Amino acid sequence: MTDTSASTAVVPEGWTDLDSKAVDTVRLLAADAVQKVGNGHPGTAMSLAPVAYLLFQKEMRHNPAEAHWPGRDRFVLSCGHSSLTLYIQLYLGGFGLELDDLKALRTWGSRTPGHPEYGHTTGVEITTGPLGQGIANAVGMAMAARRERGLLDPDAAPGTSPFDHHIYVLASDGDIEEGISSEASSLAGTQRLDNLTLIYDNNRISIEDDTNIALTEDVAARYEAYGWHVQTIDWTNGETQYEENLKTLSDALETARGVTDRPSFISLRTIIGWPAPKKQGTGKAHGSALGDDEIKATKELLGFDPEQTFEVSDEVIAHTRGLRDRGAQAQAVWEESFQGWAEANPDAKALYDRFVADELSPGWEDALPSWDADPKGIATRAASGKVLTALAPVMPELWGGSADLAESNNTTPEGEPSFLPTDRQTKAFSGGPYGRVLHFGIREHAMGAIMNGIKVHGGTRPYGGTFLTFSDYMRGAVRLSALMRVPVTYVWTHDSIGLGEDGPTHQPVEHVAALRAIPGLDVVRPADANETSAAWAQILRNGDRPAGLILSRQNLPIVPRGTDGYADTSGVAKGAYVLLDAEGGTPDVVLIGTGSEVQYAVAARATLAAEGIAARVVSMPCREWFDEQDRDYRDSVIPPTVKARVSVEAGVALGWRDIVGDAGRVVSIDHYGASASGAKLFEEFGFSGDTVAAAARESL
Amino acid sequence: MTDTSASTAVVPEGWTDLDSKAVDTVRLLAADAVQKVGNGHPGTAMSLAPVAYLLFQKEMRHNPAEAHWPGRDRFVLSCGHSSLTLYIQLYLGGFGLELDDLKALRTWGSRTPGHPEYGHTTGVEITTGPLGQGIANAVGMAMAARRERGLLDPDAAPGTSPFDHHIYVLASDGDIEEGISSEASSLAGTQRLDNLTLIYDNNRISIEDDTNIALTEDVAARYEAYGWHVQTIDWTNGETQYEENLKTLSDALETARGVTDRPSFISLRTIIGWPAPKKQGTGKAHGSALGDDEIKATKELLGFDPEQTFEVSDEVIAHTRGLRDRGAQAQAVWEESFQGWAEANPDAKALYDRFVADELSPGWEDALPSWDADPKGIATRAASGKVLTALAPVMPELWGGSADLAESNNTTPEGEPSFLPTDRQTKAFSGGPYGRVLHFGIREHAMGAIMNGIKVHGGTRPYGGTFLTFSDYMRGAVRLSALMRVPVTYVWTHDSIGLGEDGPTHQPVEHVAALRAIPGLDVVRPADANETSAAWAQILRNGDRPAGLILSRQNLPIVPRGTDGYADTSGVAKGAYVLLDAEGGTPDVVLIGTGSEVQYAVAARATLAAEGIAARVVSMPCREWFDEQDRDYRDSVIPPTVKARVSVEAGVALGWRDIVGDAGRVVSIDHYGASASGAKLFEEFGFSGDTVAAAARESL
Repeated sequence: MTDTSASTAVVPEGWTDLDSKAVDTVRLLAADAVQKVGNGHPGTAMSLAPVAYLLFQKEMRHNPAEAHWPGRDRFVLSCGHSSLTLYIQLYLGGFGLELDDLKALRTWGSRTPGHPEYGHTTGVEITTGPLGQGIANAVGMAMAARRERGLLDPDAAPGTSPFDHHIYVLASDGDIEEGISSEASSLAGTQRLDNLTLIYDNNRISIEDDTNIALTEDVAARYEAYGWHVQTIDWTNGETQYEENLKTLSDALETARGVTDRPSFISLRTIIGWPAPKKQGTGKAHGSALGDDEIKATKELLGFDPEQTFEVSDEVIAHTRGLRDRGAQAQAVWEESFQGWAEANPDAKALYDRFVADELSPGWEDALPSWDADPKGIATRAASGKVLTALAPVMPELWGGSADLAESNNTTPEGEPSFLPTDRQTKAFSGGPYGRVLHFGIREHAMGAIMNGIKVHGGTRPYGGTFLTFSDYMRGAVRLSALMRVPVTYVWTHDSIGLGEDGPTHQPVEHVAALRAIPGLDVVRPADANETSAAWAQILRNGDRPAGLILSRQNLPIVPRGTDGYADTSGVAKGAYVLLDAEGGTPDVVLIGTGSEVQYAVAARATLAAEGIAARVVSMPCREWFDEQDRDYRDSVIPPTVKARVSVEAGVALGWRDIVGDAGRVVSIDHYGASASGAKLFEEFGFSGDTVAAAARESL
Repeated sequence: MTDTSASTAVVPEGWTDLDSKAVDTVRLLAADAVQKVGNGHPGTAMSLAPVAYLLFQKEMRHNPAEAHWPGRDRFVLSCGHSSLTLYIQLYLGGFGLELDDLKALRTWGSRTPGHPEYGHTTGVEITTGPLGQGIANAVGMAMAARRERGLLDPDAAPGTSPFDHHIYVLASDGDIEEGISSEASSLAGTQRLDNLTLIYDNNRISIEDDTNIALTEDVAARYEAYGWHVQTIDWTNGETQYEENLKTLSDALETARGVTDRPSFISLRTIIGWPAPKKQGTGKAHGSALGDDEIKATKELLGFDPEQTFEVSDEVIAHTRGLRDRGAQAQAVWEESFQGWAEANPDAKALYDRFVADELSPGWEDALPSWDADPKGIATRAASGKVLTALAPVMPELWGGSADLAESNNTTPEGEPSFLPTDRQTKAFSGGPYGRVLHFGIREHAMGAIMNGIKVHGGTRPYGGTFLTFSDYMRGAVRLSALMRVPVTYVWTHDSIGLGEDGPTHQPVEHVAALRAIPGLDVVRPADANETSAAWAQILRNGDRPAGLILSRQNLPIVPRGTDGYADTSGVAKGAYVLLDAEGGTPDVVLIGTGSEVQYAVAARATLAAEGIAARVVSMPCREWFDEQDRDYRDSVIPPTVKARVSVEAGVALGWRDIVGDAGRVVSIDHYGASASGAKLFEEFGFSGDTVAAAARESL
């Protein structure tokens, strides 16, 4: 049994009694805030109070008055359910939250929602809550910081650049259990991210109480196996006496910052809910209000007035708000170094200014490639690769890679170096720590969350590729891109049954529809090479949301542009446009296709014309963009008076009734595919000009 | 540099030259098959030829003539892209594949699709290909085997029961990188699954060639950290000379089978594509045909005729088909032990017969609970918990648990023991190795794949719970449940914004629609406690497909049944039914709701009735079941003549136009939620009787 009756805290140099009182204030604010709303997670916020306080008040370089200062250290609360851990530090440090915000925890319109939300509360670096994401986000931030340094100040000696800063992430048992953290942590080891420190709150309690039923692995040994620098701290002193030794933790953080070839892992054994006398160390303290009696008992134990709630003494808040002065001072010191750099590096400074303003480089659109008409055509994935190669020189902020499918996803701009520690280069991929081609390994979920971390860090703009079917592996991260409105680009190739021989496990029949269900995600499926170029352009212009670019494995014909009745690609940005109108301009039927199936609509138009049926072909690369257009434009593309409509997409029908209406027909595949060549599958499963023409006749 | 010019194989006792020739035959069949179709994965099938051959011909207990013999060892090819590794053994061993099947690799209608497919090819235990799944499936099989033994023969000494068998899984670098394998492997360590052996093909090559760019962790050390028994074999002998030492591997397998307290991990260093002279050890050998010249050179090297393809000597096939005799003999020995057990355990034998027939126990429906009308009601998750508790005694095959949300998901039948090694019990959860309550930890993706493995193993029927929002974390596994048509049940609670304070990260607005996109998955969202009971009943009756049961966190009113105009619950099994008809039975408008929003349709009906508008209320718990009904029934529920229709569901509109038609209205939420009480959110986001009534007026 651990003696947990009282803390015999050991504190680092400079720590005062007022700091200790502030920490106890944090614990009680957490308990009070959850008690007031009646639900939430008090336990971790109580036991991690000294850890968060140490980081925010003593260890991190940041400035509450300028929470977006690019030189700041970043903090990620991977265990987002313990949002109070963060909110209370933002309150104490003076980032903008006040006591009333804490009192409004988890209520309508408050700045203190159940989980920390990016863009909603100043000082929240990223949205967390779905477990494991935060660890991967932090890995992304650490990668972004290194890339940013490489673009702006590559020759500075270690620790001397204004672009040197540190990423801290605080994680729980749940974060450690989720596979996404394994993926990201293994990659962080390969990448030797020495600017990253993970503190693992090893409290051995989750919702089902004692984690012995589900988590018995040696987590520290696992991180050693990943190639991290590992330190272990046990505040229970081998389950004998609980002692919050902040000196040890502070020393460990300093050691971690000094490690230059690996990320750092600090396993910190704590007791959840400490020092609540009855509920500490229980699953109940994790996810429920403690109850009035328990809170009163805790207040008495800590020398606070049990009858008061949300008690913060003037001297405590005055003391902690001192962070504003210290932060301003730190930023002033940084500004000096930054100015020196800016004067010495005017070109890099111009790039930096563009990063901060989140602007694209002037004239970038001139670099976009275009293609002549070609019935044989090329795959849209290949066209996408050409776009990336063409943009690479004019858009240094654009970088990315693949989850081990570089050649298949065409995500490598030709001739660009890989982002790799020098000793990780291979015969196939050379580069260095400041390269731009990312190698995620076969880790789709981490790839998504790492991209979120990269973009939210600021500076650069990431993309990442895999097969469309594996968008299923990464939806947790994709949803967060959309919820946070961060402009990352998912390059999903090998769409539909067109990928062929790999068979049903790899044929994404339902994925396009399922991705369209995610609010705020643009799902873009271009029909040929030129649409692909225009699609990339519009995706890059949209700096306020993520996109999924859905690309074919197989070659697609390249249609003429601006001649022979074909529209140019300016309509792509509007989501849908008349690609090829009915002869005479008054359609009897509207044929609407996306991606590789637009060619069948074009073929059907010719078949129908021979029968005297006037058919318009609409290419609809992005339904979300089309929905944003005004009614006049939408009606000009799909006239409300023309009820005969056919949609054709090699995926499930779900969602197409909205477009074609009661009288329309949907050419779709509502079952799994098979293993055969793509051409054979299109034939067997009813995708051709003839089937589209037949559907049009039915619809008329 | 490794000397890879020739194998100096060391072989186990009883291995003959004919075995070696058979192994070389395997390598060349793999190369030929991929070359013939022009695409596929030859490399791993070549270098793992001796490993697969050793397992199938020498190590495993199975019988080609009765591939479903319940006493057999199981083999899972987690690296499903190397399907030839499995197909060629099924051919050699005489499981039903012939040389023509290998020649038809990856073509329309063949028994040898790109990835192994469950139910399609005899001897394929489970569909694999999406990486990482197979490891988790194998963990599920190992758990199922232990549970089965516990139900049928718990008192037998280790190794003496007819229900003792072993699970083998072969995995690649990609499987190791995917997070799902980390989740499952950690849990396997906690569960002490001593009937599981994983062979890791450590070939250091993936599609992007040398894995040094993305995988540098010490995989063996990681598995040691998980608590596995770890053995390491290096066929490159420290990168000096390649030697396929099968004696060492055979010994390691024997050692693994002898370990009684842990699963076993064997890291086997190989060279992909060995012995192809030029392409061995390259990413090209992984995923492309080798080319005629390289194949000819390999044939010459191995002493085969370079001009012949698909060469199998008569003596080789006669030798390997000897497995049929050995398998029959093994099964005969087993049958004897099985008969002894059956005579001594007639009750268990009856249960076993029911397992094998995949039948439900007679009279199980009598145990289903029902509830009286109650305006306050209970949450459907709570009703689901009562159903599980009621079914537990009559349905021993039904077992499951939660990804660390047992109390929230109500997945624990009252009083039932946990499935845990004795030393993993906690204060909160007692049990033993043969218990029935599963604790997955916070590992949703592995939970899904483990359930697939459990069900495919045979014997029992699993369910697993988490919050609906985290269905995103497990879609990869859910899709495979549907593709394989295995009846596992996903219990997804805390549906919609109704969950309240946890906020948008936890509020699944798009998930119901996105899950409906998956072909073959029944998405079931009951409206009250009695519908929940009826929904569970129908899910259990459907033995040929998975279901997702979508349940509320919040209380839902329990409507009367069979009185006051309300229908009984017999319509639930039909997917949709008239819950409460318009007065007079001729509706002006049809109001269609699911789950927690059916109550708003009921309220709107009363409001509209007061205005003289006759509204019918349709409860639609499962669209997939409704779609299976004949047109007469469907038209009787939603008359084609009544164009005024309203749907109400607290999720995105996607898919509802199909039901309500052009004239209908969709009451939906097409954006993310917020952090506040569920009641507040329903109000703010427009879900009430009034909004449904207003939509009905618009639709009229």
